[in-house]
Formats: sequence, structure tokens, C-alpha cells
Amino acid sequence: MAQDDLHTLLDDTFDRLFPILRSISGPGLEASYRVLGEHMPLDYFGVPTGQTVFDWTTPPEWHCRRATLTDPDGMVVCDTDVSNLHILNYSEGFHGTVPLDRLQSHLHSLPHLPDTVPYVTSYYNRTWGFCLAHNVRQNLKQGDYRVAIDAEFKDGQIPLAQAVLTGSTDREVLISSYLCHPSLANNELSGPLVLLALYRALSKWEHRTFTYRFLLNPETIGSLCYLWLDGERLRTTIEAGLVLTCLGGPSRRLSFKATRRGDTRIDRLARSWADREPETLEIRPFTPTSGSDERQFCSPGFNLPVGQFARTIYGEYAGYHNALDTKAFMRIETLVESAGLIERFLKELDAAGPYINQAPFGEPQLGRRDLYPTLNSAATWQHSSDAIFDGRTILERVLTILNYSDGTYDLIDIAGKCRCSVTELLPAVNKLKAGGLLKDART
Amino acid sequence: MAQDDLHTLLDDTFDRLFPILRSISGPGLEASYRVLGEHMPLDYFGVPTGQTVFDWTTPPEWHCRRATLTDPDGMVVCDTDVSNLHILNYSEGFHGTVPLDRLQSHLHSLPHLPDTVPYVTSYYNRTWGFCLAHNVRQNLKQGDYRVAIDAEFKDGQIPLAQAVLTGSTDREVLISSYLCHPSLANNELSGPLVLLALYRALSKWEHRTFTYRFLLNPETIGSLCYLWLDGERLRTTIEAGLVLTCLGGPSRRLSFKATRRGDTRIDRLARSWADREPETLEIRPFTPTSGSDERQFCSPGFNLPVGQFARTIYGEYAGYHNALDTKAFMRIETLVESAGLIERFLKELDAAGPYINQAPFGEPQLGRRDLYPTLNSAATWQHSSDAIFDGRTILERVLTILNYSDGTYDLIDIAGKCRCSVTELLPAVNKLKAGGLLKDART
Amino acid sequence: MAQDDLHTLLDDTFDRLFPILRSISGPGLEASYRVLGEHMPLDYFGVPTGQTVFDWTTPPEWHCRRATLTDPDGMVVCDTDVSNLHILNYSEGFHGTVPLDRLQSHLHSLPHLPDTVPYVTSYYNRTWGFCLAHNVRQNLKQGDYRVAIDAEFKDGQIPLAQAVLTGSTDREVLISSYLCHPSLANNELSGPLVLLALYRALSKWEHRTFTYRFLLNPETIGSLCYLWLDGERLRTTIEAGLVLTCLGGPSRRLSFKATRRGDTRIDRLARSWADREPETLEIRPFTPTSGSDERQFCSPGFNLPVGQFARTIYGEYAGYHNALDTKAFMRIETLVESAGLIERFLKELDAAGPYINQAPFGEPQLGRRDLYPTLNSAATWQHSSDAIFDGRTILERVLTILNYSDGTYDLIDIAGKCRCSVTELLPAVNKLKAGGLLKDART
Repeated sequence: MAQDDLHTLLDDTFDRLFPILRSISGPGLEASYRVLGEHMPLDYFGVPTGQTVFDWTTPPEWHCRRATLTDPDGMVVCDTDVSNLHILNYSEGFHGTVPLDRLQSHLHSLPHLPDTVPYVTSYYNRTWGFCLAHNVRQNLKQGDYRVAIDAEFKDGQIPLAQAVLTGSTDREVLISSYLCHPSLANNELSGPLVLLALYRALSKWEHRTFTYRFLLNPETIGSLCYLWLDGERLRTTIEAGLVLTCLGGPSRRLSFKATRRGDTRIDRLARSWADREPETLEIRPFTPTSGSDERQFCSPGFNLPVGQFARTIYGEYAGYHNALDTKAFMRIETLVESAGLIERFLKELDAAGPYINQAPFGEPQLGRRDLYPTLNSAATWQHSSDAIFDGRTILERVLTILNYSDGTYDLIDIAGKCRCSVTELLPAVNKLKAGGLLKDART
Repeated sequence: MAQDDLHTLLDDTFDRLFPILRSISGPGLEASYRVLGEHMPLDYFGVPTGQTVFDWTTPPEWHCRRATLTDPDGMVVCDTDVSNLHILNYSEGFHGTVPLDRLQSHLHSLPHLPDTVPYVTSYYNRTWGFCLAHNVRQNLKQGDYRVAIDAEFKDGQIPLAQAVLTGSTDREVLISSYLCHPSLANNELSGPLVLLALYRALSKWEHRTFTYRFLLNPETIGSLCYLWLDGERLRTTIEAGLVLTCLGGPSRRLSFKATRRGDTRIDRLARSWADREPETLEIRPFTPTSGSDERQFCSPGFNLPVGQFARTIYGEYAGYHNALDTKAFMRIETLVESAGLIERFLKELDAAGPYINQAPFGEPQLGRRDLYPTLNSAATWQHSSDAIFDGRTILERVLTILNYSDGTYDLIDIAGKCRCSVTELLPAVNKLKAGGLLKDART
Repeated sequence: MAQDDLHTLLDDTFDRLFPILRSISGPGLEASYRVLGEHMPLDYFGVPTGQTVFDWTTPPEWHCRRATLTDPDGMVVCDTDVSNLHILNYSEGFHGTVPLDRLQSHLHSLPHLPDTVPYVTSYYNRTWGFCLAHNVRQNLKQGDYRVAIDAEFKDGQIPLAQAVLTGSTDREVLISSYLCHPSLANNELSGPLVLLALYRALSKWEHRTFTYRFLLNPETIGSLCYLWLDGERLRTTIEAGLVLTCLGGPSRRLSFKATRRGDTRIDRLARSWADREPETLEIRPFTPTSGSDERQFCSPGFNLPVGQFARTIYGEYAGYHNALDTKAFMRIETLVESAGLIERFLKELDAAGPYINQAPFGEPQLGRRDLYPTLNSAATWQHSSDAIFDGRTILERVLTILNYSDGTYDLIDIAGKCRCSVTELLPAVNKLKAGGLLKDART
């Protein structure tokens, strides 16, 4: 698919997803899955309401049709038909008349961003409420307000969705994002949209070493449910995992949050990349105190090799969790760029080995395999055309790959020794594989 | 006990201990133990004379009543009733008249400190001698000197003394100091006096995880005897050990000498402390070439996790091993301060864990335990009163403690991740223990 | 042997070896061995032609008697009787008349060094050719050239030669160099000549802990043949190995190429030496992309602890692999100096331990062994003559050696702790061995 087509697909999908009133369960979330499912073969599943999931109990589904708040003069102050952010997410239903002074404890606004409606949730404490701009709140007149929250809780499920691209091994790479916030762009839709772009890109790879699992879930409770259903299997098959979040903001480079272990293959790949191309990638250390679903994947009982890719993260932009987080801030072209970089990252991971030198005793005789010049002349190497210089560079890579491919060092290590990228090693790797001198230790 | 009371106790005890003529055995040392035993429940034991102790043989007891040296005019040049330092420590008895030229080889003085009487010992080579100021020695007139050394060696023991404070485990912390030098302050009495202060402080702790053993011994031969008696048991139960020495000098901060292993829990605690509070603690590397009884505890056959706390150490002050080492140099208030810092160090060690997260699969649901805000609003976190900021800080500590409490990381590691002290983590640790989410791995 | 005698021996031997037309097999190589064998008891062996050796097949012997190239006017352009470099090494035989334009593809010259005859080989691709100065080549006139290459290939062997000096253990140190290039000095004869010097030096040592194996072979195929014959035995007995190459150039210090493992005893010894005496030694990291036979010894199937000593290495001087590499560039006195430094390196390796403290529980009683002053007086240590200061230094070394000699630390580690060289530790080591306090862990 051309980049223009991808841009159009993500743009259109964004516009369909943005207005849906989502939460961690209920029809809005399920409808959102189905929009994405039109472009990738999603499989839907879930965990029923009331299930004990580790230390948690799954909450019921939230069915909220509409919520309005009307002032004493009949002016509509809050209306979910205007913005989904107006309702306290997971609010219980309520219909009645409430005087302003009692209403205040049900209102949420941001004094430091007085013109902006915040995004507030109350999942595990039953209450009702509205979110509104602080300036609007300040100017509310005394009197009785009409509250109409048409919402109810029903038994149902925490819904999950996934698609799988199989590879030549069942070692698995998990790519996950969350889909539970309503009308927020960078800190919501950017993740699933990049996940969609990656699914489409990887589905076109000629070769996949790993099996790739694309997971969509509501944040926190959704990844807990997934781990509860599939964690035992996952821990034995996972090669790496990436949580996708906040990928559309203006920061000029991607940011990789290290795994809890800190030294897994994706950590080393990200570090080597950040060292070599600091203009495209930076590294954040692991922390359990902020972030997204990697907090669950990296909890001590699982401790999976899961990192996170982001760009402009929570706390780095004023629009975090409020109505400023729109497509004006999160650019579709930035999503396309993020997806391209992450695809390249995954391609290097997929090819990274380690490999095993099949002729490890001494150097193999490269000359008879056309990998070494038959004529050993200084003229050949030192004062050469670019083509011959390329020959010398490839020979150095060939020798380095052969020497270190003992199962201990992977291509990330070897690229470091050759001062090049994993991608730049691949022509030599492929020549050696074709010549029977190298075997992928993973297959 | 108020600090004033402690000051008075240490001051009085100092004044009683200072004049006693001590050595590595004999009545002076045993009398000194009994003075300390008035304030802590010391248990007395020992190893008899002539016992093979590893590579050594315990020497007999030294019983020295008085020694005088009188010049040809009848002037008394040296007299142990004036200063204990006048007698070569462990001198054999001798009565006779000796001309000055033959006497010289029995005299000890310091050319570089001509007004000061040195402290000199000869434990394992039988000889007699006197110590005196170099200026006095230079002005001795020719003629016959009367030597009267009323000393003898008797079979007896190398005496040791200990007190134990039990804890909730039999893992043991050894706190030791030596008591064999006669009238010296910083490099002798400072150690036992801080040990006494620590005994009294720790006896008042509400909770002790570890059992604390307070050991007094003559330097070198005493710790060897202790190891010979108890080393096999100790090596299986010891958590950490601290040798106390030179704790009353003017240096503005404590100094921790690392253990031979260099990476034990006390090493890491000391390093993290020195990094965070360089104004209170510095680190010296381990060396077997100078120091005190840690040289024995850290000999390769034992290699125990024993460090050393000091302040102004051997070689850093002119008064080392001579008559300048008095209470004018070693201040009682400095002992009180040293004891306070070491008590804090021990308290952090006692609480350092590691702990085990009892709900390690995913994050526990902190909301229902009142450890997480039920309302997820940016306003709650970002523009908050100090009280709410404290809430955020505690939450970050809670999440970090939970994530890393897998038995691998202790609170020293986790405090490093939280950029705070172990002490500052304890409120969160205690909340989590109370909520059943955390268990001490050691109990 | 005095240095002057050594200088004369190396000089004479150089002059005999330089004119011989050598290759990786054949009479020139075998004659060269025999020249060296006059001064060390070489044992000759080999691998027959056509043998599969790992990934290789041994090539036949090259018997080249003479080769000339004569121009249309009867002028001799190339003649191996003038310089061995004129013939493409391993050229096949050819007799015939060839016009200049067809001849060109058989000629080798260096455009960037137009006055110099290059050294070019074609071992595994059968062809014939000549090497000549580029300026000469440019001025060749059109017409027919007479080619007379009196060379043939015969079944025979890849010849190897070795001499062994036994030690008190069968742990083995391999010292190898290659001997296959014809008239080249630094990048050929320097290695075998330093090997000869080392054999003669080590044969005079009073004590050798290790067994020393001195190996001569043609480069690459020769070390492969040696590994094929003896690699399995070697891998279980080898303590360290050193490849000697390029040891006579003008660089002011030796250069040690690290082993593939990077942390073996010789790596640590070389690093400590380079840190302490950067004016005599520098370290190069291991690389499989250039170098000599260490590329085979350090192939992943063997991964032996083999480093390389050099001085002015391949690529660092214009004369590499061409007629500029003569005795004018490679100085005999530099070979003598290189041999002296490497002998010192081997002496430290031979003595490096580790040792085992025979009295590891506490410090041994050094006083009764005359290793500790019986009188403990500050005057003894602090204001002392040089002799007494030496006593303090030795005591510190004694205590450090005893404390760390638990089998984990060798003298390289301990010298680092004492900020001295291994050699400087040896007086203390010998005192402790004599006193029964220290035992060599290797014997």
C-alpha cells in the first residue's frame, strides 16, 4: 500500500473512531473494535463480568446513551452529543434536579486550563458526574440544575480483540494497544491506528521469523484480562512485546520505554539504535509508576520482555487527558512516520538471530565460495573503486558474523562490532545463509 | 534516654576507663569490661593461655602493677602512676640498675613529636622498656638508671565480653570493638563507648528483625579468639558486621570501610547513603593492610560481610598512638553524633528487606485498598496541594515497591529507583504490609 | 647470551632467511625451518596434500625454481633471481610468448607506490603472473614477451615445525609465528626471529611453571593444519597463546591484540601493563577481520585464549606486502627489544598464580616468621629510613597477597590492588612460599 493510501486509511478510520463514546467495556468499545476489524481480521473474545482476575474483579458493562446537564435557565451546559468528554466516564445513571451547591461535588474542571473540558473516569467507585471547562463552571448561576444521565451497568464482559500473523516459529511478538478513552487523539487513537498500520505492513513481509500477535484491549483491566486468559502460554513463547501509545504528537523522535528486565533483545536493539541514530529514537528507563499496559506485562509475576513505543507522552503536553487532545495536535502523517520506524525496528528484531556458524573450526575457506578475493593484493583492497571498497566492507562483515555467530552473540551485538545497523548486515547474512555457512538458531 | 543523659553516661564512663592500665589480657582489660558491664548485660568468656588459635598461640596474661624509671639524681623519669603510656605495653618485669647507654635500647620516643609520649607494644617478643618524650630522652644525663618494672606473666585467658539483643530472626548483626590500649581516647575508648550507646539505643527499638551481637575484645588476638570459638556458627548466621573504631575525632563525617566482598547489603546501603548524603558519610575501599578487627573477620577463610565505621582514622591525626590522643581531641558530643548516625544506618539495614509482593500478577487493585485515587483526574495529580502531592509521591513509591519486591531487589535498590532513602520508603512499606500486599522475605 | 650475541644471531639468521623463495609449502619453506632449526631443536611434521582440514583442502607443494619475464628487446623485466617478489606467489608454471596486451592481466603493480614491487599471492586459484613496479609496467613497450616460469605443483605436505620447553605443569603456553612470505622483513621474518630469541631466553629460566610450545607454520593454512592435528589436546591444556608478527618496525611501543574472550589472564596482564606502562605497551581489541593466525585460534569452534604481539602492524606502514619491507625498515635492535619485553610479559604470566593462602583463617602470625615488626611503634613506620619504608611496603604486599590468595585472585589482580607490577610482588610471594604460607594453585 502506498503511503498516501495508508494516510487516507488512518485518517478515515480516525474520523470514524473519534466520536464514539468508549469506556473500558460496553457497546462503544465493541463498536470501535469493529471499525478496526474492517481492515484487519480481528478475533473477538473477553472475560465475563464479575470474574476474579488476579487481584481484581471485572466490572460490569457501562451502557451510556446520553447525558445532559441543564442550568436553571434551561441552557444545556453539558451534553454527550456535543462532546463525549462531558460525562464522567463510567458515571452511574441519574435523573433529577440538583441545586448548584450540591452539584459542585459532581463537577470536574481544570483550573489551570480554564477553557478546556477534562477527561475524568471513576471506574471502581460508583458516582455520577460531569466534566466541563473551568470558566464555564465559574460562571454557573445559582439555582437548580436538571441532571439527565441515561446510563446503566449490565453484566457482560471486558471485551478483547486480536489478530495473528504466523511466522516460521511460534516464538511470539506481542504488539498491543488500548482502546477505551472516548474522544482523545494522541493518548488513545494513535496507538490502535499505528497497530493497524503495522498489521498491514507485516502481513506483506515475505518472511516472518516470529509469530506476531496484535492485541487491542481496554487499558489496565484489559491487559490484566488478557494475561489472565493467556499469560501462562505467553510467558513461554514471547520473544518481545511492544505497547503502542501516544504516537502522534509533535516530538521529533520516537521514544522507547525499556522493559523491566532492561537487557532483553528489544532493549539492546533500541539502545543500539538510539546510539547510532539519536535523531530517530530515544530511550526511557522502565518505571512502574507511569505508562500503559506494560505496567501489567512487566509486573513481577510475569516480568515479560515488553517495552513501549511512544512519541509525545503523557505529561509532556498540555492536552493530556483533556479536550485539547485532537487531530490538530496528533497528526496522521506522524502516525505514518511512527509506523514506518516501528516496522523497521520489528524487521531488525525479526532478523536479529542469533545465528550459528556451521564451519566454526577456523575460518571457512571463503575463496571457493566467492566471498574472498582469490588474489591477495594490497592493490585490490587499498586503492580501489567504490565497488571493491564495498567488497572489503562486506568481507569484514562476513568475517565478523562468522566469528561471533556461536549462539551467544546476535546481530545486534555484531552490528555494534561492525559499527553498522542490523539492516546493513543482512546482505552478508543472506550470502552466508545461502552458502550454507550460517543457520538461524531460532528455526 | 535523652541525648544529655547519653552524653553524661559516656563522659563518666570515659573518665573511669581512661586511667586503667590495659593490655590484650590481664586485670586492666577485665576491669574495663566490668565498667561497661554496669550499663549493658555483658557476658564474659575467653580462651585460655597457650591455646592454638588458627596460626597463633594465645599469650599469657600480663599483670603489671607499676613501673618506674629513675635517673642518677633520683628524679623519676617514667612512672605508670603518672601515665600508663610510660611502660612498653606487655613489658616483662625487671628490677635493676642500667647505665644510660645500655638503657637507650629500651627507650621509645618520637623524634617528630618530641614532647609526646608514644604508645608502644611488644606482645610477642619478650623485652622490657619505657616510652617517653623525645625531648626528655635527649636531656637524660649520663649515669646509672634505676629500673623498677613490677610485672609478670601468668597463665589465664584472652578475655572476651558480649551482649546480645534478640530479634525476630536469628540472622545476626555483629557489632564489635576492641578494648586493649591503655590511656588513649579516639583510638581506643571511642569504639566501646559508641558500642555502649548503640546497645542502649537498639534495646529500645520496638522491632528488631535481626539479632544483634555486641562484642568487646582485645584487638587482633581477641577477634581471632572469638572467630575460633564462634566463627563456624557466625558464618552461617551473619547478615552483617560492623567494627567500631576512632569515632570521636574532628572529621565532619563518618567513614565506612567496605567489606572485602564489596557488594554486600551494608556496602550497598553505605554507598547509597554516601551518594545521597555525602556530608554525613564517605566510603573507603577494603584493604587488608591497615585497620582493625575487620582484617580478621574479612580474612579469606571467613570472608564475612563485615565493614568498619570510623571518623578520624589511624594515620589521619598526629595523636595516633601517643599521648596526644585524649578527650581534648576525641569529643564526647562527637561520640553521641556518631552513635546516632550508626543507629540510623542499622535501622535502615534492619528494615531493608527484601520483601515479596503477595499479588505479583499485574498490579494489585490499589483503589479498593485506599492506595489509589478512585477518581482519575489530571487535576488530582498535577495542580494539587502539598498533601495531594504527597499522595502522588507515596503512590509512586507503592508502585515501585510492589513492582520490584520479587525477592531480588531490597529497599536499598528500590530507594535508589525512587531517589529517596530507605527511611523515606518505610511509610509505604508499612501500608503495604498492613494491607497484606507485602511480606518480609527474611521472616 | 649477551644482547650483543643475540643481535648477531638474529642479524645473521635474517640474512640467510631473507633471500629464500618461500610459500605456504614447498622446499623454500622447509629450508627456512632448517635455518632456524640450527639454533633451536625443531621437530618437523606436517599434513599431506589433499587432506580435508576443517572447511579446507590442503593444497599441493609449490616447487618454483626460477621465473623470468623478458621484453621484446630481450631485456629481463622480472627475475626471481633478482627478487623473489617478482613472481606471483604460488604461480603455476608457464613457458611461452605473450603479447603485451594479453600479458597485462598477468601483471601486478601498485599505482600508489609506482617504484615498488608488490607481494601478491594466488593460492587457491590457479594462474600465473608477475609483480613489478608500476613505473616499469607503464613503460613496457608493445610486442611479444617471453615468459619462463619454471614451477610445478607436487603432492607433499603443509610443513610445520615446533620446539617444546617443558615446565612444572603440562598447562601450556603456545608461542607461534608464520613463515611463508618470501623476501619481506617486518611482516615475515620479525616474527620467527623473535620466536627464536624467546626460545633461547626461556630455555635459560631457572623455573618454568608452564610448558612452552614454539610453533612455526605457514600463515592461515598452517595454523589450521596444526589445530586439525592438535587442537583437541590443545584446548584442554592451553593456558595462553601468543601469535608473533610485525615486531620490528619503528613504533615506539609493543601492541597487544586482545583474545576473542577479552578477559583471559593474558588480556588482564596486558591491560594492567598498558595502564601502568603506556610507554611500552598498547592494547588493540580483538577483531576477526584482520591479523594473523590468531584468527584461526580464536575461531568460535576453538575460542582459545590466544592474543597477538606486534609493533608496527599491517596497514600502518607503506611497506606492507611490498619490496619496501626490508631490514632498513625492520631493525634487528627492535627485534631484540621486542623479545625482551615479551620475555618479561611471559615471566609475569608464568608467576601470576593464583596462589592459595595456607593459613586463611585470620591473619597468620607474621611476627614469628620475621614478616612483621615485633615492636609496634609509630616511629618504626612513619619516620623511617628507606630500608624501613621498604619493610612497610613489603608488609603491605604480604598482607594483600595473603588476603586475596583464595584461588579467586591472581597476582595480576593483587598487583592492581598494590599499584605495582607482578614482578614487584615476587619478593613477597617468594618469602611467603618459603614460609609455607602460600602455595601455587596450579602445581
